[in-house]
Amino acid sequence: MMNNIESFAGQDILSVSQFDRASLNAIFGVAHDMRVLVERFGSAELLQGKILANLFYEPSTRTSSSFTAAMQRLGGQVISINNVQYSSVSKGESLPDTIRTLECYADVIVIRHPEVGAAATAAQYAEKPVINAGDGVGEHPTQALLDLFTVQEELKQMNGLTVVMVGDLRFGRTVHSLTKLLLKYSVSFVFVSPELLRLPADILEAVEACGHSYRQVEDLHTVIGEADVLYMTRVQRERFTDPAEYDRVKDFFVIDQELMEQAKERMIVMHPLPRVGEISYAMDDDPRAAYFRQMRNGMYIRMALLAALLGKV
Amino acid sequence: MMNNIESFAGQDILSVSQFDRASLNAIFGVAHDMRVLVERFGSAELLQGKILANLFYEPSTRTSSSFTAAMQRLGGQVISINNVQYSSVSKGESLPDTIRTLECYADVIVIRHPEVGAAATAAQYAEKPVINAGDGVGEHPTQALLDLFTVQEELKQMNGLTVVMVGDLRFGRTVHSLTKLLLKYSVSFVFVSPELLRLPADILEAVEACGHSYRQVEDLHTVIGEADVLYMTRVQRERFTDPAEYDRVKDFFVIDQELMEQAKERMIVMHPLPRVGEISYAMDDDPRAAYFRQMRNGMYIRMALLAALLGKV
Amino acid sequence: MMNNIESFAGQDILSVSQFDRASLNAIFGVAHDMRVLVERFGSAELLQGKILANLFYEPSTRTSSSFTAAMQRLGGQVISINNVQYSSVSKGESLPDTIRTLECYADVIVIRHPEVGAAATAAQYAEKPVINAGDGVGEHPTQALLDLFTVQEELKQMNGLTVVMVGDLRFGRTVHSLTKLLLKYSVSFVFVSPELLRLPADILEAVEACGHSYRQVEDLHTVIGEADVLYMTRVQRERFTDPAEYDRVKDFFVIDQELMEQAKERMIVMHPLPRVGEISYAMDDDPRAAYFRQMRNGMYIRMALLAALLGKV
Repeated sequence: MMNNIESFAGQDILSVSQFDRASLNAIFGVAHDMRVLVERFGSAELLQGKILANLFYEPSTRTSSSFTAAMQRLGGQVISINNVQYSSVSKGESLPDTIRTLECYADVIVIRHPEVGAAATAAQYAEKPVINAGDGVGEHPTQALLDLFTVQEELKQMNGLTVVMVGDLRFGRTVHSLTKLLLKYSVSFVFVSPELLRLPADILEAVEACGHSYRQVEDLHTVIGEADVLYMTRVQRERFTDPAEYDRVKDFFVIDQELMEQAKERMIVMHPLPRVGEISYAMDDDPRAAYFRQMRNGMYIRMALLAALLGKV
Repeated sequence: MMNNIESFAGQDILSVSQFDRASLNAIFGVAHDMRVLVERFGSAELLQGKILANLFYEPSTRTSSSFTAAMQRLGGQVISINNVQYSSVSKGESLPDTIRTLECYADVIVIRHPEVGAAATAAQYAEKPVINAGDGVGEHPTQALLDLFTVQEELKQMNGLTVVMVGDLRFGRTVHSLTKLLLKYSVSFVFVSPELLRLPADILEAVEACGHSYRQVEDLHTVIGEADVLYMTRVQRERFTDPAEYDRVKDFFVIDQELMEQAKERMIVMHPLPRVGEISYAMDDDPRAAYFRQMRNGMYIRMALLAALLGKV
Repeated sequence: MMNNIESFAGQDILSVSQFDRASLNAIFGVAHDMRVLVERFGSAELLQGKILANLFYEPSTRTSSSFTAAMQRLGGQVISINNVQYSSVSKGESLPDTIRTLECYADVIVIRHPEVGAAATAAQYAEKPVINAGDGVGEHPTQALLDLFTVQEELKQMNGLTVVMVGDLRFGRTVHSLTKLLLKYSVSFVFVSPELLRLPADILEAVEACGHSYRQVEDLHTVIGEADVLYMTRVQRERFTDPAEYDRVKDFFVIDQELMEQAKERMIVMHPLPRVGEISYAMDDDPRAAYFRQMRNGMYIRMALLAALLGKV
């Protein structure tokens, strides 16, 4: 467990379960400083001469670009390895050998891989720090950190908030990870989803075990007025076996300006992006729409992590 | 309209129609300084800490590499996003959201896209400067600028020149853009093409409206002696429905050393490249062959634009 | 012929035949300094403002990343051109024109190409230095240099060594090149392979012509005790027309901890990687396993070459 910022040096970032409130505070403090640094100066030379290997076994322009920019804004350089030919049965090189090769060249490795546990395997073989940038249905810890950091930066507090999570709560990896992190604070939850796409039992049990207040509802319209944080995700038609059922519920999870009139004046709308219709474009100019600031926060969090893992804060 | 170099700061570069003679002079002055800088020192640190997002929805190694080198030679860094999966009907992210995401990370965005108007859409949503690196059959303004800059650098003047444009003048985007820019100066035109591939009526009308002298001919051999600037483009066999017609005319638009004996001693041969047979390799050592210097000028023009848009000149 | 480090400036690196003992000593001296530099400081600014064009007509993550890291650790920048669409019959641009375009932007060009002689063609047209990073069944000189440099760094001498080469000696490009380089020193060879995959006649004749002691055997077990350098390569099942023959011999060319008990205490195991079963993972912690250090030496050799070709040592 990392509990102050110095203790991040040389560590791997594999899971949100590595973080407690002390380490979250520590990394958010650095991330905030990174934001100030970028807003005032654009960049720094903290990681000059350092190299990040960006190893993507599946494409993710957004995450890959965010890590690249984070490294570059600190003066470091990036080796991009995209669209790695991957097949567990092919005659290709094993993940451990790829990792050991890359750490001959780089100082820190970011890995995205379709298989759960791949990042942990990479970290086991690497002597250099490894950051999990998504391992299939497993974890994507920097996404959860940037989500929580956004709440902190926007609302200046975590305790006492009502967090409304909306959409596909069953398969939504970002919802699961953010919920786990929020359990460390005193928040109330409202989970809004079709019955089919409710939060998995184990996450719900963790919420209950922490004694947090929560409700599960099916229609956003009835609860939007309570939200301090409205966390939207996409509901995919493909999840439904019965198209009629999809058509019945699909508007329950969409926001527009009219619905936002019922929301508090001081609250934020978040979305991990990409969105596909669940937030209308007209919403973008609403000051409560935080999803692009959230995107920028991703760069600040990754700057903070890169600097901390390389012992430069 | 940008009319001095300071007024470029924060602007977008979408079309040659944004430029008048004052702004062309301004940017060519900076581009010339960039050439001197590169020839003497190789690089500078003018854009240190700045990031360019190079967003290519269709491949173009030449243009992409030129922008990358331009940014790097000024000390900046590049996020390359190549082969973006693109389909207007797919469930993928919309162009506005992609642009808004990228500007969270980068200071300036270069976009190449197969659809006319894509760069303008990008610029509409971006707060950071956007440069159009080709939008389908639309515009590719930095190509036109580097073409005109090459004339300026090589011949030290624009007024009084005879410009001979050769090849596919109907579909050749570079010919159309360069012709529009040349209308701002006192030049004579000779348009050399098969009848099938003549300049579109609207461009020809613009030439007439400006009162410029021009002729349309079918065979380069008869006019090569007049050229101060010989701008070659490729004639593709596929444009012809009748192969016999292609075979009849194809040699009318090809130059070699023998034909060049009829050309002036002080003139230049340009080509946007890639070439496929219309200029023989033996020509490359002729001092009048300017097409590789033209390529290098592309880097200088892009250096000048990047520095100007980022307010660093 | 390059015979001191200053004479590397502006040269191309196309073949191991360019090197004699003086030039090998010179480049290994610089590579050793690069190792010390990286181990102590991580990076330097020797090539700040310089640009490498990494032109890969076929994918090779390992080699491409190694050159990229080498350039970046010296403060330089990289233009990566991967997966170039390549077809000798297509209407695409010719290699000479691609090279001439790239040298408008870059200071040095690394090329990997599936056709023998492609790098030499590139060097013929380029004024800037060209490094061959593999041209089909031709050469891959930086691999041979890093192999020999590894022997030097690990064992501090070349003369008097017994080098045991194992596996596919017929098609193994790395074996051929390393053998040629080793002929410049007083070494004894043992070539271990199935009869089908013996060293080609011309290489064997070169060994004989140099008066070096050598043997050809079929089973590694009988000779492992003699090795100062054990150079492993992969034996592919596909090389055999008779699967039974493959099954009979396949264990003759595999090492594990048990077999290594028969090896000297001071010796090294090398492999160009990727490996596919011929060295067990359990071997990796054996201090004699040099293949990951060999990988890192590749970066040092490439740093040395880039600096030397650009006249910066």
